[in-house]
Amino acid sequence: MDALDILTDLENVIPYFQPIFSADEQRVIGYEVLGRYQSEGNIVSLGNFFLDDQIPEEYKYEVDLLLVQKALELVLKLEDDISIFLNRDADLLMYGHGEPFLQELLAFEKRGLNLKRIVLEISEGNYKGDFGQLDHLLQYYRTYGIKIAIASIDSDTNYFERIGQLNPEIIKINLQPLKSNAAAASFTDLLFSLSLLARKVGATLLFENIEMSYQLQFAWKNGGRYYQGYYLHPPAEMFIERDILKERLKGKFHEFITYEKKKLEALYSAAEYFQDKIQDILVRNKKAKYEELISLIVKEMDQIAFRMYVCDEDGFQISSNIFKGESGWYSQQEYIQKNWSWRPYFLENIIKMRNDRKGILSDLYSDIETGETIRTFSIPISGNDYLFIDISYQYLFDNDQLL
Amino acid sequence: MDALDILTDLENVIPYFQPIFSADEQRVIGYEVLGRYQSEGNIVSLGNFFLDDQIPEEYKYEVDLLLVQKALELVLKLEDDISIFLNRDADLLMYGHGEPFLQELLAFEKRGLNLKRIVLEISEGNYKGDFGQLDHLLQYYRTYGIKIAIASIDSDTNYFERIGQLNPEIIKINLQPLKSNAAAASFTDLLFSLSLLARKVGATLLFENIEMSYQLQFAWKNGGRYYQGYYLHPPAEMFIERDILKERLKGKFHEFITYEKKKLEALYSAAEYFQDKIQDILVRNKKAKYEELISLIVKEMDQIAFRMYVCDEDGFQISSNIFKGESGWYSQQEYIQKNWSWRPYFLENIIKMRNDRKGILSDLYSDIETGETIRTFSIPISGNDYLFIDISYQYLFDNDQLL
Repeated sequence: MDALDILTDLENVIPYFQPIFSADEQRVIGYEVLGRYQSEGNIVSLGNFFLDDQIPEEYKYEVDLLLVQKALELVLKLEDDISIFLNRDADLLMYGHGEPFLQELLAFEKRGLNLKRIVLEISEGNYKGDFGQLDHLLQYYRTYGIKIAIASIDSDTNYFERIGQLNPEIIKINLQPLKSNAAAASFTDLLFSLSLLARKVGATLLFENIEMSYQLQFAWKNGGRYYQGYYLHPPAEMFIERDILKERLKGKFHEFITYEKKKLEALYSAAEYFQDKIQDILVRNKKAKYEELISLIVKEMDQIAFRMYVCDEDGFQISSNIFKGESGWYSQQEYIQKNWSWRPYFLENIIKMRNDRKGILSDLYSDIETGETIRTFSIPISGNDYLFIDISYQYLFDNDQLL
Repeated sequence: MDALDILTDLENVIPYFQPIFSADEQRVIGYEVLGRYQSEGNIVSLGNFFLDDQIPEEYKYEVDLLLVQKALELVLKLEDDISIFLNRDADLLMYGHGEPFLQELLAFEKRGLNLKRIVLEISEGNYKGDFGQLDHLLQYYRTYGIKIAIASIDSDTNYFERIGQLNPEIIKINLQPLKSNAAAASFTDLLFSLSLLARKVGATLLFENIEMSYQLQFAWKNGGRYYQGYYLHPPAEMFIERDILKERLKGKFHEFITYEKKKLEALYSAAEYFQDKIQDILVRNKKAKYEELISLIVKEMDQIAFRMYVCDEDGFQISSNIFKGESGWYSQQEYIQKNWSWRPYFLENIIKMRNDRKGILSDLYSDIETGETIRTFSIPISGNDYLFIDISYQYLFDNDQLL
């Protein structure tokens, strides 16, 4: 398909609409506008046209403007709480200092389109211009109520840093990387920290390219509020009935919720199990010194744990490490008097334990020394001292509801 | 200073050593090697020499190799648990496919240097080469025990994504951005999610450019284990006494710990205060319907909260929102039957409350609708239902130990 064909046949340039569903309402809350060209009965994407470096910006702008016009013309008849997501690459956005595009939107505003419904999906992948000017323009657009979405995690820009700088209303995440198993593990860690970053800055996560049930579950589990993809609905020439997936999505979420609650309940039971085990030893050996105590617990938890130590409430280690090596448990004296208060959650958990007089089973994390995925069970033992028991990956693996 | 001056006067190229201190041991655990050139009694940094695009790679490589040789020569006499951090930009690293540099290290290994002590600080800022080849080389180095640190968050690469791909042992964070107040807020959010990513992947955080006490505190609070900067010790020609800062650092950490514990204790008290307040109303109005109950709580918490609602244990909202607008509290019916189970921590907290029959005060986060920094207090009310009370920024601000 030649660019010239398109430019001389603009009436066959048409917008397609991909519905975006929300987890909270289980119905369509917006549409992403996609460019299509119909020729000889075929519908082809205009994606390559817009990505083609050889085509001058002004032609791209012209085609894009037409798409936006045709799309918004249809949107005028749509329910007025449905958002419209428009893709903008940064170069296109900066065309004419962003002014002609804004004027176009304002013309539609006069005809009744609330600009709060417009979400600009910014992709900065190839942008070589001045980021200061770009950000300035985006802030200017925002004064009209227009929202900003930042495009996919697999793009070429400083994704996390740009989130900090732009404070986008929406963060868009491409689920394509999930398809390869190798990438999936690190992608999961990245998404976990991304979802907490979004929570901190107040941004909404939108997952795209959802093509299978487990991707929907993954998106749901990782703080995704908005979803789109062929698994839900393909892009189409027209809008769809808003509640079309309501029952199906409700059913899906019910599955996810049930599964997750079961997992969380299993974690809770495991914590109780460890609590009872240790508490029992503590009660029966009130006068034992810590090293004695630990050796009693080692016997009890030989197949569960691989490291134990005692810290005071400021995080200073007051026992040596007892560590399970190839040939059994041994003591690592050099850990005495090390301080662990700088570790995430450490003091938070100490204060919790001090007040509740109860143990805590940690989240999954990678042990800095062994590199293994582990959990730590910590429990107040006496006075201001706390026992830490690192649970081995093997045990978590054998009790896979703990993974 | 002319590049030619340096290249014809290599004997005046010398390594400087900046000590790196650890939070757990409060003593020197390593040195970063920095390039210096002494000329007419002045010592100048070789930073610009290495960054200069005009200077051919082979000259840079030559100077760098000399620095490494001179540095490791001195390191041979150092205690053997002290690590050596060598800066490598990706181009320098790929010089000669990375082979000559490795041979150099192996020569030192023969003389007794354990390569596990070598940490390569990779900066990829200007790298235009093949990342696949680079990663391959780094994995190859690792087979010799060499560790990888990834350089600063303000660099030009996909920082977070690279962490996922490379799985570095150490993540280096430049604290310079903390100096400007505007950048500080988003930097804090970024670092929070970075520290949790590091926890998940098992990487250690190293903070550099610590120049003031509050930067040290910031690093400590954000999961930093290693620290370097002028506030601790400037780079010097020779190694220093390992325990030189032990007492000072212990004192500092004691301050930080005390402050943090006080803050955490205040949060705990606030949660108890809310708990008692609500529990009291619940007990005295056992037969009240939820809307009634909420209006009673609104009276009690008018100056504290700005939004309340009830969810069932699957996250479906079963009351409307009661929201405090400009002119007082009003009801938002449209929220009934929305589902919130996709939000981070939601189900986790439900299971906690279900088991402990006690309320939870959340972390600080940005409200998606108002954009304000808030906390949420949630509490089990009856059967499988839970009341959520969003605490206003104003109240947190007035009780600033809650911020």
